Order: sequence, then structure tokens, then C-alpha cells
Amino acid sequence: MNQVTMEKIVSLSKSRGFIFPGSDIYGGLANSWDYGPLGVELKNNIKQAWWKKFVQGNPLNVGIDSAILMNPEVWVASGHVGGFNDPLMDCKSCKTRFRADQIIEAHMAEKGEHADAIDAWGNEKMEKYIADEGIKCSNCGAINFTNIRQFNLMFKTFQGAVEDSSTEIYLRPETAQGIFVNFKAIQRASRKKIPFGIGQIGKSFRNEITPGNFIYRIREFEQMELEFFCEPGKDLEWFAYWKEFCMNWLLRLGLSEENIRFRDHEAEELSHYSNATTDIEFRFPFGWGELWGIADRTDFDLKAHMSQSKADLSYQDPTTNEKYVPYCIEPSLGADRVTLAFLADAYNEEALEDGTSRIVMKFHPALAPFKAAIFPLSKKLNDNAQEVFNTLAEHFNVDFDDSGSIGKRYRRHDEIGTPYCITYDFESVEDQCVTIRHRDTMEQERIKIEDLVAYIAKGLKF
Amino acid sequence: MNQVTMEKIVSLSKSRGFIFPGSDIYGGLANSWDYGPLGVELKNNIKQAWWKKFVQGNPLNVGIDSAILMNPEVWVASGHVGGFNDPLMDCKSCKTRFRADQIIEAHMAEKGEHADAIDAWGNEKMEKYIADEGIKCSNCGAINFTNIRQFNLMFKTFQGAVEDSSTEIYLRPETAQGIFVNFKAIQRASRKKIPFGIGQIGKSFRNEITPGNFIYRIREFEQMELEFFCEPGKDLEWFAYWKEFCMNWLLRLGLSEENIRFRDHEAEELSHYSNATTDIEFRFPFGWGELWGIADRTDFDLKAHMSQSKADLSYQDPTTNEKYVPYCIEPSLGADRVTLAFLADAYNEEALEDGTSRIVMKFHPALAPFKAAIFPLSKKLNDNAQEVFNTLAEHFNVDFDDSGSIGKRYRRHDEIGTPYCITYDFESVEDQCVTIRHRDTMEQERIKIEDLVAYIAKGLKF
Repeated sequence: MNQVTMEKIVSLSKSRGFIFPGSDIYGGLANSWDYGPLGVELKNNIKQAWWKKFVQGNPLNVGIDSAILMNPEVWVASGHVGGFNDPLMDCKSCKTRFRADQIIEAHMAEKGEHADAIDAWGNEKMEKYIADEGIKCSNCGAINFTNIRQFNLMFKTFQGAVEDSSTEIYLRPETAQGIFVNFKAIQRASRKKIPFGIGQIGKSFRNEITPGNFIYRIREFEQMELEFFCEPGKDLEWFAYWKEFCMNWLLRLGLSEENIRFRDHEAEELSHYSNATTDIEFRFPFGWGELWGIADRTDFDLKAHMSQSKADLSYQDPTTNEKYVPYCIEPSLGADRVTLAFLADAYNEEALEDGTSRIVMKFHPALAPFKAAIFPLSKKLNDNAQEVFNTLAEHFNVDFDDSGSIGKRYRRHDEIGTPYCITYDFESVEDQCVTIRHRDTMEQERIKIEDLVAYIAKGLKF
Repeated sequence: MNQVTMEKIVSLSKSRGFIFPGSDIYGGLANSWDYGPLGVELKNNIKQAWWKKFVQGNPLNVGIDSAILMNPEVWVASGHVGGFNDPLMDCKSCKTRFRADQIIEAHMAEKGEHADAIDAWGNEKMEKYIADEGIKCSNCGAINFTNIRQFNLMFKTFQGAVEDSSTEIYLRPETAQGIFVNFKAIQRASRKKIPFGIGQIGKSFRNEITPGNFIYRIREFEQMELEFFCEPGKDLEWFAYWKEFCMNWLLRLGLSEENIRFRDHEAEELSHYSNATTDIEFRFPFGWGELWGIADRTDFDLKAHMSQSKADLSYQDPTTNEKYVPYCIEPSLGADRVTLAFLADAYNEEALEDGTSRIVMKFHPALAPFKAAIFPLSKKLNDNAQEVFNTLAEHFNVDFDDSGSIGKRYRRHDEIGTPYCITYDFESVEDQCVTIRHRDTMEQERIKIEDLVAYIAKGLKF
């Protein structure tokens, strides 16, 4: 085990500049977070790694970046206006607000009962269960709940100079719909043939009543979604293809196999339109949690938009001339959530031979904020070391560090996950070689300066 | 001249998949736009080019990615709650809504008068001018305006389960404040010394009454902002430094010198706290317009947050022990606006020797959506050409195109700005060479397949 806890991650994130509490000097804003200098590099690297493999590197797919603010009809068609609700209830005694499904889930977990598919219960069933079981308010102990009311999770705003229902719009709760409404335009402009996919990275917003666990569940979050369109009947094949593709992406980026697993949804848990759904779960410090949802959504979304917009979103096969509404496989990953997974998985505390210890973030080099750090052994060598830095900086994000002992600089860069520390010493002037020290093994080797770029580039492959 | 018009850019953007109207199948959402497969690559390349030069490549600077939703106190401190307003008036006859300052500006322009600094006029002065000049409603011709009322441009929403003033928050109207509130946390975590800067790329939202000119003025837009902190008294030096740095970035990415100019703000136009402000303007197809605002904001922002939050945002110089509130230089660039500039500047129609013509987008290779396209001369060569494609795809975003004549494929890739078209022919099997054709000169040369990666990489430098 790597002894990681949420406290340790939150603390290291703040002190080293990965992630800060949002609006901190004003006392924050309920569970909002800002990515600091190292965090923005880490998250950008994760997003670029996804884009590289899912969009640019997969000849079947193309990308899109659609607006957060969309015509509100989109959310009628998608079902979000009608059905994207949390079941809320208040304790009348102490005014604390709860999600009924979470109260039930916690109660069941305590009793050791299996808590799946509460999502599908109606208000009455939930109210009855809470009453029958005599569940108390976790804050004040009273049994004095209001009835459940459905609370829509979309953030609402107004566009234009008047605030009324005619100008009411929503912050998108998912990036997927921006893909569906552009399906036809993209297919036409890119001349893609089925099967093909459209990928998107972007912010989404959900007015969660109980966000929490650091960046695991936040109201403003970033998604990396692919909608992959295929012929009906071939959907389960492609579902299997993308399940494996997603898992491989995580493994190739170094996530530990023992911390990831598939969880296939059981029949009663599936949405009515879904032929199959699987979560990739990660073992977070607080327990197993959903990381990546992969769903076979059939033709549900395109048909919903055809019906609402009257636009024809069917596809005509250019060889068979057959016309059909494509089925769709959706692998949907939260960029913040997977950043937390990479942080937790990378965290290690190690006892060293000299009796001291170190914290080391074992990021895959492709994800590490700095690819390398250049250390002049003495300030007299700064100019020479700077030249090495300049050469590397043309290709990679690198750091220059000339303060404190070399040992201290190693510790500092271990803690932020820099894979290669490069020391320029007095001999370097003569032999044009430097010492490269490996973060995980702490082994050192002497290599030629002219070989550095290729050496580091090799390590970045995944 | 390159014969570019807004119509041509909008039309090419839609047909080739750069930019689509937002929510199009639902009749759109007033001037919102979605970036299609080529547009998202172009815009990402622009953002990455900015990040590379302003954040990663400049040792003085670090990055951040702060949340869009912030504590509302932030916008009290920044002055946006009190003063971020448009002066609106309605025509009582036809109900059309206008911005009073824009009515006046248009009227002055018609008369050939200089229209600067209307921003600084009060409501009364504007109302009087409109009445005195007898300005008519441009829609119905009546002279029947309401008085001016100030309309706040921030999008409002509610966080939590209750909709009232206690839960009211805003979508950020600029990314800058996310930097100011994190100034101290970042300085501490990154151990940076003054002078240093913090850069951010992210979405901002302004409820503009009159958005327009395609992606020039939109409600949901993306900013690339740097806040550069320096010692008071050294601000004008750094102001000069960043002016030149910004201009060089544009020029090195190939923007034509004759389409860019500096416009220094005159004394009466300057905000009360600003020591100097310059716009870089671009000659858009509709005329010169602001592209990049570079402002010396002194210590206005940090002091405003110190006063509102009671946090100490001053800086102590580690060598002199002098304590002061840093001054700040802000180069602020709209990612969408500069994308429009690159699109307009790249657009060319050329008559060819054979009597035909071509449209060619002369993007700098670093910005072009595809860096290269691989053409097998015959479908029999597809497998071999695919190998070349695979090698290049590890390094760059490249296209594989085997449909239509080579001439047609050239035209297609000219229109989307692919700098290198690479044809794999029957001889290639023998000599392991390919023909590389240059987009702008249409010249061709024969080069070894093994040299392709280095050849293309060289072209990407800027």
C-alpha cells in the first residue's frame, strides 16, 4: 500500500500548488477548487493524453468544442428539464437538508444491505422506507422530515436584458448533448462514415446538494466524453471495444491494476434505453468509486432530438443506401475525478536507506507537470546549466532549480513527481555529459547532453 | 488584399467544419457558436501556442486554472457588481433595445467625428446628446426613447437548493480575478520572487446586449490572460516588455504586419487606476477592432481585494525586506477573437496558372489543424501509405486521404490549411522517398520517409 489518505493529498496539493480551495481569501465557495501552477499542468497533460488517444490518434474519431450555453429545447429533448432531479427532504426540527436516496443508502450500508438501484425508486417508496425504518436526522436525531420534493440539478441563468421564463437558459449539465445536436453537421463537414466518433472536453455544471471528497464530486467539473456512432446490432461489439480501449488508456498511463476494476451494471440498474453499461471503478482513499461510465445508449439520444427538433438525424449508408438512426456508445470520464485518481495512485511514502523518508509522486512522465529539472551543482555553473535548460525547454516543460543542496532539490522534485533530475557539474564542462537521476529507482546514470531530448522524449510515450 | 469577407469566413467555417452555429437544429441560441473538428484543433493550437510562450516557455511565469464560479464577494471587490453595466434604452414605439453608447458612436462615425471615451460619459450626458442631435430609432425611425437604465452584464445563477439573494452567484466575466485572489497562495507554493506572472486560459461570460460579428463578440468566450506582478516604479518598463512580447507572438505566428497595429490609450481614455493602456488592433474584414488589451493596472486589483477580504496580499522582498503591494501588467487576449483574426488573415483566393483558382488558408504550421496529409497515389498503395501515416501520427495530427484525384485532394487540404501534402507513389516502394508539396508555394520536393518527422517538426517552430 502507498499509505495515501485524502488528507495527505489535499495537504500536498495545497502546499505544492496542485490544487487550492476556490475563492479562499473570501472563505471559499462550497467545495470549489482552483488548479495551481502544478495542477494545471497535470490536468492539461491528462486532457491532452485523452485527446491524443481518443481523438487525434484514433482515425475513427474527430473532435468538437461546443458551447456551454445552449438552446433550452436541448434539455427538454435530453430529459434534463423533466427528469434530472435529486429527491430532497428537510429535517423540520433543525432545517438540515438531505438527499433521500443518500439517507437510505447510508442506512442500508449500516445494516449491511445491498444498496443498488435506489435511483429507480419513486418518492413514495423512499418516504415509506424512511418512515418504516424509523431513520433519524443525522444532525439532530429527530424523526421529523418533510415530504420529498424533486430538485432540478441544472444551474439556471438568464440571457438578454430581461429576467423571465422566456430568457431562461441552463449551464449544460453534460457535454454529450453538444455532440448529439452537431452530429449531422459534423458528419457532413468531415465526410465521416459510420462507424465514427466525436470527442469533446469541456466544463459541465451540476447544482449538487452534497458535493464532496475534494475534487471527486464538484459542481463545476470538466468532462472528457466520446460519442461513438455505429450501426444498430453492432453496438455490443463496439461497446466491448471501447471498454478495453478505456481500460488500456488508464493502464498505459500507469494507474495500478489493483486499483481499477470493471463493474457491469445489472439488468435492473440499466436505463430503459441502454443495452449495456459498465463503470470503471477506482479505489480512491475513501473507497471504490465510479471513474468512467461506458454506456451503450442505443439510438435514444438522436431519436429524442429528432422528435424534439424535427431535424433528420438519420444516416444513409453510402454503399448499401440503407437509412438508419445510428446507435451510440458513450465512454464518459470526469477530468477532475481522473486527476484525483492519478494523484492518489501516484502518492508514495518511502523509507530511505539513510534513515530518512521521502514522499514521491510516481506520475507517468507523460502526466508529470515537469518532465525534468536542471540542477547546476554550483552557482558558478548556472550559465552552462541554463543552456541545457534552454535546449530542453524548447521541447518540454522543465524546471531550473539552483537553491539548496542537491539532496533537497531531489526531495522537492520527488514530491511533485518530476521523473528526471539532471545535474550539471564541473566535469560537465569538459565531457559535455550530465548526471540523470531517476525519480522512482533513484538510480543515476551519466549521459551526453546532446542525447537528452531523445532520452526524455522516449520516456513520455504511453 | 486577400479578398476576405466575413461571409466567406462564416461560410467556409461551416462547410469545412471549423465553426458551426450553436444549437443549430433548434434554431440556434443568439450568436453562440460551436467549434467543429477543424475549429477545435485550430483553437487548441492557438491556446497551446499562447501557453507555451507565455507560461511554460517564460521562466518568469506560472499557470493557473481557477473556477468559473467564485464567491460573489470577488465581484464586489473587483467593481463588477457595482459598475459592470451597459447603458440600455428602448424605443417606446417599436420596443427595440439599444445600447446608448453604441447609438452615439454610430452617429458620430457617420458625422466623421472622433468617438473615443464615450464609456466615461454619464447617463444624462448621453441622453442629452441623443436628444440634441435628434437621433432616430434605427429600426422604426421614431424619436421616442426611454431614459437610460444601467444593465449589469454578469450572468447570474443560484447555487444550492434555494433561489434567493443568499445563494446568488455569478458566472465570471473575466479570468483575471481568479488570478488575483490566488496571488498569495501561488507565490507561496511556487516560491516565485517578484517580478513574476500568472497566466490563465478559460471561459468567461458576459450578457452582452448586442453580440455580433461571428466570434468577435460573443456572450460565452474564452480568455488568455496574464497578470504580471512587479515592483511599483518598474511597471512602465514591464509594460513596454509585454507590449513587445505580445506583438512578437502574433508576428511569429504569421499574422501580417499590415493587419496589426498598436493603439495607445490617451490620458482621458485611461481608467483612473491605469498608468498606461495599449490595444493591439487587428484589421478584421469589418474594420479595425481591438484584439489584445495590455494594461498597467498598478496595485488597483490587489488593493481592492485586500480591502474587501482583509487578507494581506502584500509582498516582502527577500533581499531588501521591503514590503509593498505589487503593481500589475495585464495582457488580455480573447481566444475566439484571435482565432477569427488568424482565420481572416490566413484566407486567400488565388488564380492558378491553369485558369482555375483555389482558396488557401495560409495558417502557420503550428496552428494548422492538420500538420500534414498522406495521399496514396493509388488505393493499391494504401497499406504502405498507412505506415507513413502511422509514423507521423505518433508525433502530429495528420490526415489520411485516398479519395479523388491528387489535385482534388490538394484543393481540399489548401482550404483547411494543411501545410504539407505527402504523396506516396509507386516509386516510393523502391526508393523509400515521398513527394512533399508545400501549400503556399505549391512547390514539390522528394524527400526520404525517414526524414519526414524532423522535416515537419522544423516547420512547426515559431
